[in-house]
Amino acid sequence: MSFSFFSKLRSSKQQLALIRDDLKRVREEMAAQVGHFAPYVKAYMGEICQTRGKMIRPGLALITAAATGGVKDSHVRFAALLELVHIATLVHDDVLDHAEIRRDRPTPNALWGNELAVLLGDSLLSHAMMMGADLGDISFCKRLSRAVRDVCQGEIEQSTRLFDLEMTKADYFELIQKKTAALFAVAMGGAAYLSGLDEELVASLDRMGSLLGVAYQVYDDVLDMVGSEGAAGKTLHTDAEKGKITLPVLFLLESEHEGVSTEVRDALEHREEVNYARLSHTKAFQEAISRSVDEGLARTEEAREALWLLPLSPARESLTEMTYRLDELMRECCC
Amino acid sequence: MSFSFFSKLRSSKQQLALIRDDLKRVREEMAAQVGHFAPYVKAYMGEICQTRGKMIRPGLALITAAATGGVKDSHVRFAALLELVHIATLVHDDVLDHAEIRRDRPTPNALWGNELAVLLGDSLLSHAMMMGADLGDISFCKRLSRAVRDVCQGEIEQSTRLFDLEMTKADYFELIQKKTAALFAVAMGGAAYLSGLDEELVASLDRMGSLLGVAYQVYDDVLDMVGSEGAAGKTLHTDAEKGKITLPVLFLLESEHEGVSTEVRDALEHREEVNYARLSHTKAFQEAISRSVDEGLARTEEAREALWLLPLSPARESLTEMTYRLDELMRECCC
Repeated sequence: MSFSFFSKLRSSKQQLALIRDDLKRVREEMAAQVGHFAPYVKAYMGEICQTRGKMIRPGLALITAAATGGVKDSHVRFAALLELVHIATLVHDDVLDHAEIRRDRPTPNALWGNELAVLLGDSLLSHAMMMGADLGDISFCKRLSRAVRDVCQGEIEQSTRLFDLEMTKADYFELIQKKTAALFAVAMGGAAYLSGLDEELVASLDRMGSLLGVAYQVYDDVLDMVGSEGAAGKTLHTDAEKGKITLPVLFLLESEHEGVSTEVRDALEHREEVNYARLSHTKAFQEAISRSVDEGLARTEEAREALWLLPLSPARESLTEMTYRLDELMRECCC
Repeated sequence: MSFSFFSKLRSSKQQLALIRDDLKRVREEMAAQVGHFAPYVKAYMGEICQTRGKMIRPGLALITAAATGGVKDSHVRFAALLELVHIATLVHDDVLDHAEIRRDRPTPNALWGNELAVLLGDSLLSHAMMMGADLGDISFCKRLSRAVRDVCQGEIEQSTRLFDLEMTKADYFELIQKKTAALFAVAMGGAAYLSGLDEELVASLDRMGSLLGVAYQVYDDVLDMVGSEGAAGKTLHTDAEKGKITLPVLFLLESEHEGVSTEVRDALEHREEVNYARLSHTKAFQEAISRSVDEGLARTEEAREALWLLPLSPARESLTEMTYRLDELMRECCC
């Protein structure tokens, strides 16, 4: 994911302006939360929370808030909480991947070792749950803790099913639903819940977040296979290296162009990296990408429908435009 | 801590009988919770949750429940949740310590690697928080999430203050309050809360759990320095090796027997292991142990006072006897 993915999703300056001040408040809230940790923990948390991420989850929560009655203080705290949960998962991911750099900064494990990084991730996660309990009611807490658990389980499923040729498309969608979409869903559904919306509307926005999360992950998986590193702003082809069975891989495996599907299957069976760069000019590859993109586009279309229940507003428009922008980004992968 | 520490704390068979059936129900509940994880996560969780621990936190919750109106289903689920939180911290501890064996079984990191072990710990922790939200109200969730955060922060403080000669006794007590006593406190206070007790009684039992947790940790720290491995049932002198500044170390550092205090200070300054076995026959060492034990005894005495508010019952008696048994164990360290 590029650093500016969220800005990429915002098709106009106006949309950015819509929540720019609120995003600033979220960053201030994150800094304030750092102050609530114990003396010997604060300095580390301060450093960790300086990571300037894409703030996509807080952004989604804020735009949803704006579209459902306006951004309240509770939304700002909720948005900060979401980013802390996301940062906690990144801190643990970096330990697992032995990553030394993230967004041009040394990772916590590189700075202070794995031991402290694991504990800091745990602390951040439990602090975020505490913020959740301070913020909402019991139903809100359930929503939040379930989403966090889903993210963790999705990560486990991913790491245990590398090179797994038994994987089906249904498995893939279930996996990314947990790994990525659960937090998108709670960002939008949770924000709507804090706005006091009725059950049907909350469920509808939760569903929109979920669909957007799935589409976003499909895009990310397609980009890893076709993108140029410069444009994507990150290292690509890492999924192939690790043996992740993503959606385009699944389409390649069922391709009618037998030479290609056999080559991919053989490589995965031997737990070897598939050379997608070499395959990229084949018809099978192009079909696999375009079918994957179609799956993504079907989700964003459904996501737009979930918005119909909301009253028309600049924020609702902004959410709609965001889905169209994601469509554009996905379609660019087919060229 | 020995495998049978909790049985050690129970001075008679009757006390064990008091909650034996309920502890069995807790184990069944833990097994049932395993079934709630995603298909690809279940098998790992099943393996992890087979660890037969001391069940000290569930035991405290159950005895508290028995002393405050009787053990309800919610208490059993709460007790299971507490053990899952505890197991999650052990899973992460084993990753950090590169431990391969715990209680005669291979650790998750030894079985499946660090990556999966970190994620499984995260999953267990967030699942436990979800169970908490399903179990109680918002005040209960706050209590629980704060305790879990305190445990994580205590661990961080410990790992960042190894060989730290700036450490004071106040720092030490604050650290173990978080690392160990927070979960003991929530075990007793949370169980009382689920029994529907009034605020004063809940606070009183929370305080008792906290005092018991502090005394327990003091005992554990003293035992690490004086115990024989056979009797303790675990590897000892690991605190010295790691450079942990525990209570007896702090008393040694302020000892009037200057030869000893200087030797300890010098070793810690050079980040070297102090040879406590060699010092163990000095007057300074014996004083440090007995002063530490006195601090522990002061806590158990205060813990007993917290019980006065409860109506007399076999379960209340059992809690009282438990504190006396801990006194005995601490005094044995002075011989």
